[in-house]
Amino acid sequence: MNLAGDNELTMTNVRAEKVREVARLATRTGRARSGEFLAEGPQAVREALRLHLENAEHGRAEVVRAVYATEDCLDKHPELEVMSNKAERVHTRLVNQEVLAAMADTVTPQGIVAVCIIPETSLQDVADTKPRLVAVLTRVQDPGNAGTIIRAADAAGADAVVLTSGSVDIYNPKSVRSTVGSIFHLPIITNADFGSTMAAFKGQGSTILAADGYGAADLDALQDASAARRAGSTEPAPEGQPVLEEPTVWIFGNEGQGLDETELAGADHRVAVPLYGIAESLNVGTAATMCLYASARAQRRG
Amino acid sequence: MNLAGDNELTMTNVRAEKVREVARLATRTGRARSGEFLAEGPQAVREALRLHLENAEHGRAEVVRAVYATEDCLDKHPELEVMSNKAERVHTRLVNQEVLAAMADTVTPQGIVAVCIIPETSLQDVADTKPRLVAVLTRVQDPGNAGTIIRAADAAGADAVVLTSGSVDIYNPKSVRSTVGSIFHLPIITNADFGSTMAAFKGQGSTILAADGYGAADLDALQDASAARRAGSTEPAPEGQPVLEEPTVWIFGNEGQGLDETELAGADHRVAVPLYGIAESLNVGTAATMCLYASARAQRRG
Repeated sequence: MNLAGDNELTMTNVRAEKVREVARLATRTGRARSGEFLAEGPQAVREALRLHLENAEHGRAEVVRAVYATEDCLDKHPELEVMSNKAERVHTRLVNQEVLAAMADTVTPQGIVAVCIIPETSLQDVADTKPRLVAVLTRVQDPGNAGTIIRAADAAGADAVVLTSGSVDIYNPKSVRSTVGSIFHLPIITNADFGSTMAAFKGQGSTILAADGYGAADLDALQDASAARRAGSTEPAPEGQPVLEEPTVWIFGNEGQGLDETELAGADHRVAVPLYGIAESLNVGTAATMCLYASARAQRRG
Repeated sequence: MNLAGDNELTMTNVRAEKVREVARLATRTGRARSGEFLAEGPQAVREALRLHLENAEHGRAEVVRAVYATEDCLDKHPELEVMSNKAERVHTRLVNQEVLAAMADTVTPQGIVAVCIIPETSLQDVADTKPRLVAVLTRVQDPGNAGTIIRAADAAGADAVVLTSGSVDIYNPKSVRSTVGSIFHLPIITNADFGSTMAAFKGQGSTILAADGYGAADLDALQDASAARRAGSTEPAPEGQPVLEEPTVWIFGNEGQGLDETELAGADHRVAVPLYGIAESLNVGTAATMCLYASARAQRRG
């Protein structure tokens, strides 16, 4: 269907059942009931549609169920109209400003939202691809932190992100926003059991590294050793120290408490980001970014 | 005075002028008028008092003007009472829960706040110390981002943070909170003129590096070259590439627009944090952390 051409279809009733249905995706119950979540704003919707079109080409799962946009927004971002029209089985509708505001979670939804399908990726699906770099979030509670780590994992070229069952629901609008589109860039597994996650990745040969402020291994020392090896040093890695070049699964814990004893026991090594100043700790999102990039740098620059 | 021993002094009137005075520190006008800001919660107050006591020993400027705490909080954190009692010229008062809530900006101020003095550090003071690592924030707008960068600068052992005049006021409660005490760990200069900042640090021999997604130099390549040199490689740095081991001033720009042409022109080199995945960019706080740690690692591990 032609999205912008059919003005008589512009939705203007903020009380319509459809509007309420979309708005309900801001709640956990609403998402659980429908298996859908909301992407807001041109960038997120563009990434959703891009993945939808790419998946369609390869016969993979659908990503977007519906797109709602104001005429203004499509005037500013004509590529979004082109993509929406190309995407098969995506319900697309023009809406006015009021309807969009009623559907969206943000105060300024920037003219467009997409109803997206929560993907059903299994741990085994991901483990079977023999990933080289995976981030596991266990009991991370803050939606912004979870989103930041997903964005950083994407930037570092990680193969997947796993969230254990005690973690924040990353399909809530705040998390989705803080991924800045990265939620559509790599497989994300939610509600995973911690033990099964460790078993799945150990089974395919990954080293499990726990990010832990009290860890015996120093991330900077590991990075320097790795860079020296890649520059031709033949010195072997010190005994009992991880080798960043190897396939790696990083575990990141709760904001306040870090990783608990069971979680630490699941790891092959505990690694600390060194603190050179007076600060007592780093934000989990910051620490995760440092760890994931350290692995990315070691694995990719050979 | 003995903070906890003098129960008759407990403040209970939420409408008292003093309570309103403290509450006004949540506003820019209130802070400008009094030259004070608010630190909330046990950790921030502890770091403020620690710096106050340390400065007193060295005849340096006062940090804390007043501490307001509930009896519950002092029972849980007896060291805060000890520190308060030791701190000279700090007005300390017990308050009830309601008064504390009326003073504080947070919903859960965790039983204690301190009225702190906005320090008057000049650019020249900092440049005169011949700093090895400085972060300059120009037009960074989000209070959380500014706070995160100050915390990261502290963790990386940076010598100072400079905010140019177009940046967020880091003495607003949200920024202070997001530094998690780091605001008391290193000199912070606010309202600096960009040109004067560049001149001051170039004058004492620092290399100016602009964090710029389109930069020609790749942060990971620079780190690898630096690690190889430190591991004994005698290969000189490629021409036109910065050497991370040298004294460095990093410039970080606005969240949406990055650095503008004038700002980029002020730098000796433009450096990009590489993106290995599909993500189009990194959050400025994340990028800043990566850059500052890259320098810290290069400068400290010789």
